[in-house]
Amino acid sequence: MAWEKNFDVDDVLDRAAEVFSIKGFEATSIADLVKGMGVNRGSLYATFGNKHDLFKAVLTRFVEDHQARTLAQLDAMGAPVTAITGLFDAVLTQSVTDKEKKGNLIVTSALEFPNHEEDIQQIVTRALGKLEAFFVRRIEAAKASGQIGADIHTEGAARSLVALTVGVRVLARGARDAEALRSVKAAALRVIGVEDLARI
Amino acid sequence: MAWEKNFDVDDVLDRAAEVFSIKGFEATSIADLVKGMGVNRGSLYATFGNKHDLFKAVLTRFVEDHQARTLAQLDAMGAPVTAITGLFDAVLTQSVTDKEKKGNLIVTSALEFPNHEEDIQQIVTRALGKLEAFFVRRIEAAKASGQIGADIHTEGAARSLVALTVGVRVLARGARDAEALRSVKAAALRVIGVEDLARI
Repeated sequence: MAWEKNFDVDDVLDRAAEVFSIKGFEATSIADLVKGMGVNRGSLYATFGNKHDLFKAVLTRFVEDHQARTLAQLDAMGAPVTAITGLFDAVLTQSVTDKEKKGNLIVTSALEFPNHEEDIQQIVTRALGKLEAFFVRRIEAAKASGQIGADIHTEGAARSLVALTVGVRVLARGARDAEALRSVKAAALRVIGVEDLARI
Repeated sequence: MAWEKNFDVDDVLDRAAEVFSIKGFEATSIADLVKGMGVNRGSLYATFGNKHDLFKAVLTRFVEDHQARTLAQLDAMGAPVTAITGLFDAVLTQSVTDKEKKGNLIVTSALEFPNHEEDIQQIVTRALGKLEAFFVRRIEAAKASGQIGADIHTEGAARSLVALTVGVRVLARGARDAEALRSVKAAALRVIGVEDLARI
């Protein structure tokens, strides 16, 4: 009789997210996942299906849980401009403290899946849409409170901030130093027409 | 007696670059390379070594040939601000016309190799450094000619433009529409303090 280890599905998906964050989808082997998730190969396939299915579950959870919580926390900040720069601060902090140079699953997926896996691409597009919607909300709030000027084009600025977020996350994976990442935060402020954070 | 097909090494490396640009390093198989490069497996290994060695040769050629030529062409443009926006226009044009959604080898490598392959990471870092140096040259030239203000921090703006370039290239791989990419060009202008391209 086969012995099946009991495990919490969410815990195990979180551990799978760690594994995929370090190596990406393609370079991660089933052996890496068995080791990192602490479940045996049979349970892995029985519970999650193949590597594609598992990754889809991991990415969906990442977007619905991790991304949603992060954006909700930033939304809850009083000053809307601080919420925007807070996202760039978080990337900066992570790049300095994370020795494993984990990638953000949304950003790595945007590069890994353009030519195949339509279902994954749709999750990525929705996640980037949520990020853009967050920027739209904060820019509108900043305009309403007078923190940024009414002349800033909300949609255009929000899309540019998405590009900056994606760019800084790629650069944060080891290619560039903290100084370069701080410049990107300054650029984000320029995009929304803020010259000096201390003055708002 | 083995029959060895004659081939031009540079031509074959260009074709390997195409293959890697579509699928990335990890997802590209030796079979993909044999088919795309038009050389047999034995010749491929004998001439280029393993997949890692081949990719290193491809990336080195891409940086020294393609990137160097692109930046030299932009450097040769009369108006320095146009040289900067020209890079974003090129990404926009490529994203609309390239049905295969090829990735830029420098950007995809920045995401694929953070935790392994130190030699590849070094090539990526140098390539991003060359891009930053290009922006520094054009910003300084634009300042000298009065196209942009002297108050713009050259190094900071150049680093931010690197992040925007990387970000827009990731987004251009299918996740975002042309409108989003045009916004990034507008953001690039804001980073260098230019509100309206028609006015300079």
